[in-house]
Amino acid sequence: MGSGSSSSVELPVSSLQTEKAMAQAEAGADPRRAFPQSRKVYVDGTLHSGIKVPMREISLSPTRLSDGREVPNPPIYVYDTSGPYTDPNIETNVAKGLAPIRLPWIEARGDVESYEGRSVKPEDDGYRSTRERIEVERFPDASRRRPMRARAGACVTQMHYARRGIITPEMEFVAIRENQRIDEYGDFVARQHPGRNFGACIPPRVTPEFVRDEVARGRAIIPGNVNHPEIEPMIIGRNFLVKINANIGNSAVSSSIEEEVEKMKWATLWGSDTVMDLSTGKNIHETREWILRNSPVPIGTVPIYQALEKVEGVPEELTWEIFRDTLIEQAEQGVDYFTIHAGVLLRYVPLTAKRVAGIVSRGGSILAKWCLAHHKENFLYTNFEGICEIMKAYDIAFSLGDGLRPGAIADANDEAQFAELKTLGELTKVAWKHDVQVIIEGPGHIPVHMIKDNVDQELEDCFEAPFYTLGPLTIDIAPGYDHITSAIGATMIGWYGTAMLCYVTPKEHLGLPNRQDVKEGVIAYKIAAHAADLAKGHPAAQLRDDVMSKARFEFRWEDQFNLSLDPVTAKAFHDETLPQEPAKTAHFCSMCGPKFCSMKITQDIRDYAAQKGLTESDAVQAGMAEKAEEFREAGGEIYE
Amino acid sequence: MGSGSSSSVELPVSSLQTEKAMAQAEAGADPRRAFPQSRKVYVDGTLHSGIKVPMREISLSPTRLSDGREVPNPPIYVYDTSGPYTDPNIETNVAKGLAPIRLPWIEARGDVESYEGRSVKPEDDGYRSTRERIEVERFPDASRRRPMRARAGACVTQMHYARRGIITPEMEFVAIRENQRIDEYGDFVARQHPGRNFGACIPPRVTPEFVRDEVARGRAIIPGNVNHPEIEPMIIGRNFLVKINANIGNSAVSSSIEEEVEKMKWATLWGSDTVMDLSTGKNIHETREWILRNSPVPIGTVPIYQALEKVEGVPEELTWEIFRDTLIEQAEQGVDYFTIHAGVLLRYVPLTAKRVAGIVSRGGSILAKWCLAHHKENFLYTNFEGICEIMKAYDIAFSLGDGLRPGAIADANDEAQFAELKTLGELTKVAWKHDVQVIIEGPGHIPVHMIKDNVDQELEDCFEAPFYTLGPLTIDIAPGYDHITSAIGATMIGWYGTAMLCYVTPKEHLGLPNRQDVKEGVIAYKIAAHAADLAKGHPAAQLRDDVMSKARFEFRWEDQFNLSLDPVTAKAFHDETLPQEPAKTAHFCSMCGPKFCSMKITQDIRDYAAQKGLTESDAVQAGMAEKAEEFREAGGEIYE
Repeated sequence: MGSGSSSSVELPVSSLQTEKAMAQAEAGADPRRAFPQSRKVYVDGTLHSGIKVPMREISLSPTRLSDGREVPNPPIYVYDTSGPYTDPNIETNVAKGLAPIRLPWIEARGDVESYEGRSVKPEDDGYRSTRERIEVERFPDASRRRPMRARAGACVTQMHYARRGIITPEMEFVAIRENQRIDEYGDFVARQHPGRNFGACIPPRVTPEFVRDEVARGRAIIPGNVNHPEIEPMIIGRNFLVKINANIGNSAVSSSIEEEVEKMKWATLWGSDTVMDLSTGKNIHETREWILRNSPVPIGTVPIYQALEKVEGVPEELTWEIFRDTLIEQAEQGVDYFTIHAGVLLRYVPLTAKRVAGIVSRGGSILAKWCLAHHKENFLYTNFEGICEIMKAYDIAFSLGDGLRPGAIADANDEAQFAELKTLGELTKVAWKHDVQVIIEGPGHIPVHMIKDNVDQELEDCFEAPFYTLGPLTIDIAPGYDHITSAIGATMIGWYGTAMLCYVTPKEHLGLPNRQDVKEGVIAYKIAAHAADLAKGHPAAQLRDDVMSKARFEFRWEDQFNLSLDPVTAKAFHDETLPQEPAKTAHFCSMCGPKFCSMKITQDIRDYAAQKGLTESDAVQAGMAEKAEEFREAGGEIYE
Repeated sequence: MGSGSSSSVELPVSSLQTEKAMAQAEAGADPRRAFPQSRKVYVDGTLHSGIKVPMREISLSPTRLSDGREVPNPPIYVYDTSGPYTDPNIETNVAKGLAPIRLPWIEARGDVESYEGRSVKPEDDGYRSTRERIEVERFPDASRRRPMRARAGACVTQMHYARRGIITPEMEFVAIRENQRIDEYGDFVARQHPGRNFGACIPPRVTPEFVRDEVARGRAIIPGNVNHPEIEPMIIGRNFLVKINANIGNSAVSSSIEEEVEKMKWATLWGSDTVMDLSTGKNIHETREWILRNSPVPIGTVPIYQALEKVEGVPEELTWEIFRDTLIEQAEQGVDYFTIHAGVLLRYVPLTAKRVAGIVSRGGSILAKWCLAHHKENFLYTNFEGICEIMKAYDIAFSLGDGLRPGAIADANDEAQFAELKTLGELTKVAWKHDVQVIIEGPGHIPVHMIKDNVDQELEDCFEAPFYTLGPLTIDIAPGYDHITSAIGATMIGWYGTAMLCYVTPKEHLGLPNRQDVKEGVIAYKIAAHAADLAKGHPAAQLRDDVMSKARFEFRWEDQFNLSLDPVTAKAFHDETLPQEPAKTAHFCSMCGPKFCSMKITQDIRDYAAQKGLTESDAVQAGMAEKAEEFREAGGEIYE
């Protein structure tokens, strides 16, 4: 288990440093201690009863004026993905799972039925017989749970409701969530940025009707399987906050169920909006059950991974029947979106032969091998309508996989990649015909100057379905730092219009991420998403930066830590140079030392105005402008 | 002292992990062990004798074909900033300094004279008297060294020679250095990227004449004080590789001379192209002497910092005489470029009063305070011609400081910032009149969508003088991770045309960087610079990625580590999941495990072709295309 911070500090050498590291590790272990001066609050809905949208309220200390007076700073509210784990009033128990908060909404719609689900088979967990099965702890309720699905002839997707003009509780929930109580700040942000054009499409306040309209057009999705009622609804679309996904999952090489559940909680604590379970080893079914029952965020999977385990790793032996059964299995458990590599067509496979790095998508290569071996068209493509029938019965969203994404800068934006993208667009239309929600997966490895083309092409070919990209990594030569090489690409592609960014950890290309790697990846992607949100002009994003900069300027050190993405690490770094408590309230920082400080000067500019009996900056400006005018009149230009 | 890697690994908990950390720390301590399978080579000049341009040669293992044959992979040559410290044939001694390799070139020009320099005063090191002085080890040769300067009436700048059509040894040196022996690869890169437009301005091979022309136009500079003959020449300009700078320096709060010299060596080991010494405490002069005598890269300073120490931290007491004397002091020591905040004009100061974060540049605030206190124009502006006279006598480049750069996203691209930029352009023309080289400093804190404006404005207002930016940071809310928030901005601004990127460490806004922070900052900025180089189409940059991707595709693990920016960390991360030695040659990676691997599939596609008696990819393509054609003819579209 990693420490709760110290991401990029050197290894502790003194005992003092070791103590700090221990303290941080402890903070990480109790999620409620990761964000000091924060508390969980809920905002009620107005259209629907029973809606309680979680937010994290960060309390701020007052501004101290030079005359000693104090002016209070209102708290700010930030988007909170951490679920009930950070609510001190909720007792969570991993063996019981989270409360099914969406259940009343789902049942109230009257379009689902519960039924006797498919019974779990040994091969679901990668065993050939019950006897061979290694005993792992089964999720206690799993066998008693009866899955739900759409009644015969019904469609239970959010897109379906949206197109019929229905604003669901989920839609109201995400509208409230996106706003982060920005209203309470009045025009604070607008006043700070008078000339700023706040995103063409992003409204100053997101309404439930706006949400409905975006979902109806397919420009946004609200993932949420009827069998995953535990989630706090969220929306993925380019006219909303940019979202991030964290991949977790055991593999043939290592890791346990408990570790994966912990990684899910850890990733959402730091801000992951969805989690993909990419498990590939034994006990896939059971691992997924534990993750789903305990996850407050939507869970995605790549069903072909499990299907491949069922045929013992031999792609040629995959069949539609095995794959379909796997989809039902996962649908009944509650998976919220499926990566489906239906765009890897037989005729596209040869396009990859000349590449430097060939096919790097695991799903893409499985399908490519299947196509090659049978000389038949990809069975996911030929059975796509059949898949849609399943998706609409549970409200599972398609994440149409980019099996031919480039795995090297050299292969970026090539024919294979864009040929597949066009096919994904064709499939999007088919899914939409069934009212099934769709997002489109994107690359990968792309140099900076080729990133924008990816978004433009996707929006055109896939009719504005939300784009969901892996990075992209902008260079190939920094293994060990690919959270950085890809956060660069992720920021840019987010700004250009990508709706969700799949994280990359420092272990990419090298190994499986541990707990600390997951945190590094999530933080790097929170940075990317936030940078994109700022660039797109999201007012709630801008507010947090403005409040932070104000705290910085006023030397409110504790507020600076608490407003940051990772308060414990920020504070630990400050402690390294200035460990004493008074330094946390000092009006200087360690860069210039106590004697002189550049920030202090601006204070002086303002104080100077105050002394002269003037109030605040306008007056300073007036007085100085007068002086400056004199200067200009006296021949402002030198060298004349 | 930090470890040589483990940047973002969690703290070691097992003894095995601790051992690894120790091994890495050791590798860091001996710079020759930081880059396995690399050796220092030198390329001779042809126009001038005595030119030996250092490069790092990375040896690669052969490609193993499926039939068992081996095809050798030629070594690649990468830009090497580490100086003689990584040459096993050179004995270095910090008390003697590096060999003055440029001395014969400088002397051969016959335009300098040596003279009795200014004698060092106690206040140069921040003391009021010799008695008060705390004893620090003096650099042994310093007192015997006679400085050089231009003979009366002469100008000894690279710009001066360039404008007279002279190709200096420095110019030939940087031309060879930029090319990195790309010629030896023939059209390898072009073949990999048939349709790629390789940068409009970047020639496929940099010639000495191209260098001369760029320097003559002021579009690039070759910093190199005649009193710093130890440096290996380098060029800063947007039609060359993007460069990075690392800031080091003690402060009133902490650190020693030895630590600062070590940080300089450490920063250049990982790839820093220049180093700025921003020391502010005691022993500034002595610290600088040790750094200069041991630095293979150009050193920059902000002379106003030292001048301020001489007036005991009271900006109002600064005078032109004290400042001028400080310039001479540093010029004689050999500083290669000076940050001069001559654009902070009296009339611009009030423009900052309404900002969220006011003035954040230390130099900018010193000058603002001076202007306010005296109600006079900035003495750096009014004495600018006087400064030029000094710069041209030693060949010191101006780094025109952006004292009014924004320190918050909220303040980006405001009136104060752009007003100052226009003045920097005016000053550029004055400097160029004297044939003094100029670069222009830029921000700071800029949201993603406002970055490009900065470059466009700078190129216009400052007549294409090279731009040199700090980051920019793209968000305010991630203290502890500002190497990442700013590497994003740095990549973009580098791509748009910034010539040199000043690094930001994880400690920005929080404290002084230690050794590990310096490394984190340098690596993040090597990533940014390389991403920009790729986007600009520099063929030598592209070659390294292509060679890396080929090694990745062929599972040449050791080659992947050795080709990376930080081999020891990459290998350590791989070891965490798969520590056994055979895994380093295995044809799989830890992500999918040994049973199935996506990269392997592409191998299968190629092998399939080989089995059929066809050779390589063209044949596969042909065969598959045939099959695909059949498919299309049989009705390729489903749903018809």
